[in-house]
Amino acid sequence: MTDQAVALVVLAAGQGSRMLSDLPKVLHRLGGVPLVGHALAAGRSLDPERVIVVAGHGADAVGKAVAKLDPEAQIALQEQQLGTGHAVAQALPLLDGFEGKVVVLYGDTPFIGADTLAALVSHPADVVVLGFEAADPGRYGRLVVRGDKLDRIVEYKDADEATRAIALCNSGVMAADAGLLRDLVGRLGNENAAGEYYLTDVVGLARQEGRSAAVVTCDEAETLGINTRTELAAAEAAFQARRRDEMLENGVTMADPATVWFSLDTFIGRDAILGQNVVFGPGVTVESGAEILPFCHLEGCHVSAGATVGPFTRLRPGAELGGDVHVGNFVEIKNSVLAEGVKVGHLTYLGDAEVGERTNIGAGTVTCNYDGVGKHRTVIGAEAFIGSDTMLVAPVKVGNRAMTGSGSVITQDVPDEALGLGRARQVTKAGLAKRIMQALRAAKGKA
Amino acid sequence: MTDQAVALVVLAAGQGSRMLSDLPKVLHRLGGVPLVGHALAAGRSLDPERVIVVAGHGADAVGKAVAKLDPEAQIALQEQQLGTGHAVAQALPLLDGFEGKVVVLYGDTPFIGADTLAALVSHPADVVVLGFEAADPGRYGRLVVRGDKLDRIVEYKDADEATRAIALCNSGVMAADAGLLRDLVGRLGNENAAGEYYLTDVVGLARQEGRSAAVVTCDEAETLGINTRTELAAAEAAFQARRRDEMLENGVTMADPATVWFSLDTFIGRDAILGQNVVFGPGVTVESGAEILPFCHLEGCHVSAGATVGPFTRLRPGAELGGDVHVGNFVEIKNSVLAEGVKVGHLTYLGDAEVGERTNIGAGTVTCNYDGVGKHRTVIGAEAFIGSDTMLVAPVKVGNRAMTGSGSVITQDVPDEALGLGRARQVTKAGLAKRIMQALRAAKGKA
Amino acid sequence: MTDQAVALVVLAAGQGSRMLSDLPKVLHRLGGVPLVGHALAAGRSLDPERVIVVAGHGADAVGKAVAKLDPEAQIALQEQQLGTGHAVAQALPLLDGFEGKVVVLYGDTPFIGADTLAALVSHPADVVVLGFEAADPGRYGRLVVRGDKLDRIVEYKDADEATRAIALCNSGVMAADAGLLRDLVGRLGNENAAGEYYLTDVVGLARQEGRSAAVVTCDEAETLGINTRTELAAAEAAFQARRRDEMLENGVTMADPATVWFSLDTFIGRDAILGQNVVFGPGVTVESGAEILPFCHLEGCHVSAGATVGPFTRLRPGAELGGDVHVGNFVEIKNSVLAEGVKVGHLTYLGDAEVGERTNIGAGTVTCNYDGVGKHRTVIGAEAFIGSDTMLVAPVKVGNRAMTGSGSVITQDVPDEALGLGRARQVTKAGLAKRIMQALRAAKGKA
Repeated sequence: MTDQAVALVVLAAGQGSRMLSDLPKVLHRLGGVPLVGHALAAGRSLDPERVIVVAGHGADAVGKAVAKLDPEAQIALQEQQLGTGHAVAQALPLLDGFEGKVVVLYGDTPFIGADTLAALVSHPADVVVLGFEAADPGRYGRLVVRGDKLDRIVEYKDADEATRAIALCNSGVMAADAGLLRDLVGRLGNENAAGEYYLTDVVGLARQEGRSAAVVTCDEAETLGINTRTELAAAEAAFQARRRDEMLENGVTMADPATVWFSLDTFIGRDAILGQNVVFGPGVTVESGAEILPFCHLEGCHVSAGATVGPFTRLRPGAELGGDVHVGNFVEIKNSVLAEGVKVGHLTYLGDAEVGERTNIGAGTVTCNYDGVGKHRTVIGAEAFIGSDTMLVAPVKVGNRAMTGSGSVITQDVPDEALGLGRARQVTKAGLAKRIMQALRAAKGKA
Repeated sequence: MTDQAVALVVLAAGQGSRMLSDLPKVLHRLGGVPLVGHALAAGRSLDPERVIVVAGHGADAVGKAVAKLDPEAQIALQEQQLGTGHAVAQALPLLDGFEGKVVVLYGDTPFIGADTLAALVSHPADVVVLGFEAADPGRYGRLVVRGDKLDRIVEYKDADEATRAIALCNSGVMAADAGLLRDLVGRLGNENAAGEYYLTDVVGLARQEGRSAAVVTCDEAETLGINTRTELAAAEAAFQARRRDEMLENGVTMADPATVWFSLDTFIGRDAILGQNVVFGPGVTVESGAEILPFCHLEGCHVSAGATVGPFTRLRPGAELGGDVHVGNFVEIKNSVLAEGVKVGHLTYLGDAEVGERTNIGAGTVTCNYDGVGKHRTVIGAEAFIGSDTMLVAPVKVGNRAMTGSGSVITQDVPDEALGLGRARQVTKAGLAKRIMQALRAAKGKA
Repeated sequence: MTDQAVALVVLAAGQGSRMLSDLPKVLHRLGGVPLVGHALAAGRSLDPERVIVVAGHGADAVGKAVAKLDPEAQIALQEQQLGTGHAVAQALPLLDGFEGKVVVLYGDTPFIGADTLAALVSHPADVVVLGFEAADPGRYGRLVVRGDKLDRIVEYKDADEATRAIALCNSGVMAADAGLLRDLVGRLGNENAAGEYYLTDVVGLARQEGRSAAVVTCDEAETLGINTRTELAAAEAAFQARRRDEMLENGVTMADPATVWFSLDTFIGRDAILGQNVVFGPGVTVESGAEILPFCHLEGCHVSAGATVGPFTRLRPGAELGGDVHVGNFVEIKNSVLAEGVKVGHLTYLGDAEVGERTNIGAGTVTCNYDGVGKHRTVIGAEAFIGSDTMLVAPVKVGNRAMTGSGSVITQDVPDEALGLGRARQVTKAGLAKRIMQALRAAKGKA
């Protein structure tokens, strides 16, 4: 790592028309987060002083997404897309007064690794370009090097036969001294076929000034850019394959790794067991030794050691399951804390709730947390027993070691060790079932 | 396209003994519909005047399935399976008076494309055979052509070395002038090793009459026939792969295309989002911008723009979701129309219901649509609030802006802006939970 | 098969440190059962008189698992892991008095076939080693044979160039005369680099005694051992691929075989239909013609002919579904017998229950089988009608042709043909919904 300060500029203004989408390209999801989130996460590993995202198409939506991904990031607006050099120019005002290295990343290039970026910024040259040996160089720009110096970048269409034979290609990613970048970006021209301002021209200008330029290389896979939905699907498959391998190597048990989907930030402890068909949205941590049975959907939640979840369970943001908690089939937990040993076996919705240790929640229980206008909390104590089909009309509290009767609608607090019951007494009418069925059949016969 | 009238004859009489099944082969499903449905759908693209399906094994079941797939199709019965020529002969009575082209398709050959059929019928020759260049010609019949004329079809076992070297093979699909076909099919013999009447012999007879015969070719993949369950599984995989690619190319967002299964007629709009593990049965349309979360099962339903469905949702035939509707986890909707903005978040069954705009359905709600004899409808107005665990005993109506209390059994209509409530008052008995648990534990101790 | 008695010794003492797990390696699951269960099942095909599992790391857990898998198996404790010869030595006391063939298997080698073992024990030689032609012999021990006699086993590191060129490798599996084995194992030395007692040295000792040794070969795939989670995942994929092919060849219909997971003992009848994403835990039998729709999780249950299950159904141990039973979405059945024609369509939990023929269970029904201390049974008769949202507080009985009203809590038995009802009468309060919403909105406005 360098000792220099780092500023990140992430170019995210393109529409991505080949995505055939109204959504800006960088907001399409990969590993559960928008594409731009991957570049931001990689860049974050450099501990940057400033993070600037250049937005254009769908700038409002991009801005909102970036604010969630990285609240400290700033947005620079590029109203017209006049090339990568023009994009960086829009970020310059937000770089005012910054001294150090500026790293330029791309919102649609999600796989650049932290090690690669560290190598890029720690290189002493004034301008450092990230290159890669392409298996099929095709129409990439070629990097012409002399010794360990980068001589120039030649666009494919301007390249002669000999230059086209070079396999070392330009990824577009670049690190440059902030002062130099400010100076050179202001001097970029657009006298080319596309009429665009190319950031790559900075290398030639720097060399003309007698400043040093160099190449750092990475694996071609890191430079993969996304332009179509088919490419996005392939990138997702590559992302998941890598995450699954990492999980196996970290001692996670998976019945069929190909049917577990991770997000960028999923954390799973050693010896945790994951069944077939588990989807991890963003923000999930599963401790060592927890078990997630097949057909589960988790996001924004925490599962502690010894807990078992599923099958057919949905954990939504704010679900926190303590040690040895059991959450079973057809259960949804949202924004609720379940203390150690709580059991929620079947057909239940817990939202905006707090449940004490070793409490048992019967099948069919619902926290009626929404009254049509606002949301309210349900608080249940420890070692309580909530009977099946209990409606807990929030705000409401059920005490420690308290019980509710099956089928009760609980609208008032139930104190510790008390029983709350709201139930009509059963009446049994002899022969009535027979008469009802006869009447229904007769009515249907006539109809 | 030709200007001539077209009649379709689909051969579907075989048992398919290699399927190891009591189900007639053409009723095994591919892309959510019986195999024979694929040939019918392809043939339908020719806008045929008559459609005749020749059924034999399991003819009753085939007839019923065909009636659902294409109500205008007629069934010709082939009681004994004496060859393809014999099969077409059984269809002749239903071709009485028909003038134009007869196209012969196969119920177990699902991938013939509409373009291929169009080329077949628009060819001016009297008899046109669909051929393909086989990667491995194996034991297929060979097509012997001279210039652009089809000279004859030679069965593999009758072919000499030179003929076996021909890669152009016979798919069995054929188009022929109706009058000619009627004449020639009547003259087919069965003097061959199998003692069967072969449709392919029509080519030789036509040539003897001085009538023209020609070949139209297609990709080998189109001619794939299904004979075993392993072949069916491979065909399903090929079908799904093609549909997934089409969806990506049409701008559909899929988290993992390999875990989305489409039917032959599934329509998904651009920018709709499909999570992992979504199964589309027949008859589903999803509008642009709708989102289907993971683990959903849909058939015979419509999802409008802006709606979100899932995870863990089942939409059954007749479910119609308006714009911005939200249907959440562990919810089943059947034969019900949900107007714009309706929310059904959790653990609910709506069957035979109608729900007005912006109405909220609480968790655990059930439309009790079946009384043991017949089914009845539930009608809920706009901006109503159905409390959690409401039983709506149909037939019943709940008005606009009306409410039902949690845990109520609603047996009588609730007028607009009224509250319907059926609930025992809560009683809370201090210390009773403690005494109950003590008693239960004591009883268990004794037992 | 040989006429000789067989005793099985399964080596299962290793920790499997490369699994990165606190769980002993042989307890990691493959096809729904612990790895050691596969060796036991294969060995069971020899109808052994004695079965001895040598346990070491996690011996308690291994012992418990083995007791479930094979109640007649005995455990020999190997406190220190001093090699395969040492492991077999620990089993000798449990072989006291046994005359016949001893077969040594490995708990982490799950794919040895019954045919292979039969060939091994029926070979007349005194010591028979299972060998295989390795595609890449690598560091395996090599089998040096002369004619059909096994001359010796040479460890890779002791092998010269010529011996390393031998492709016939040692699987470690061995059958030997019991008396001879007892004698030779006692004489094994540990003068080698690892300081371990190698079972393979038995061959050399036997030959020195003038006893015969031979090789029986099998496919390399059968000898696959599991050392890492990545290898386990690959083994699981291989296991599932083989089971899926077997199912197709037995006439099972699968929409997408790659998304059906079988256990070692799953039995599915011909013409049963399995949708996408079905997980079979251990102990499931599905009869011919039953249908399992997508997204189902079954273990320890039986599904009879004509029954339909799913989508989104969980059948737990002890669920027995009679002919033509229908169990629908978001339904869990545990330890319950459903007689012919029972319908349980939606959102239901049946545990510890018995349901008579043709009874209909309404949506939202729960058997409240747990009172906080013990479990109790629910018995429902034939042709009964359980209204939606009925709570059946066990122990309780509902008679033949009896009914329960929707939303009832049934705490007392309902006789045949009677109606059980526990429900507050509905009251409807005009205009109250409007006033409540106004009040809630006003309160929120102030807040």
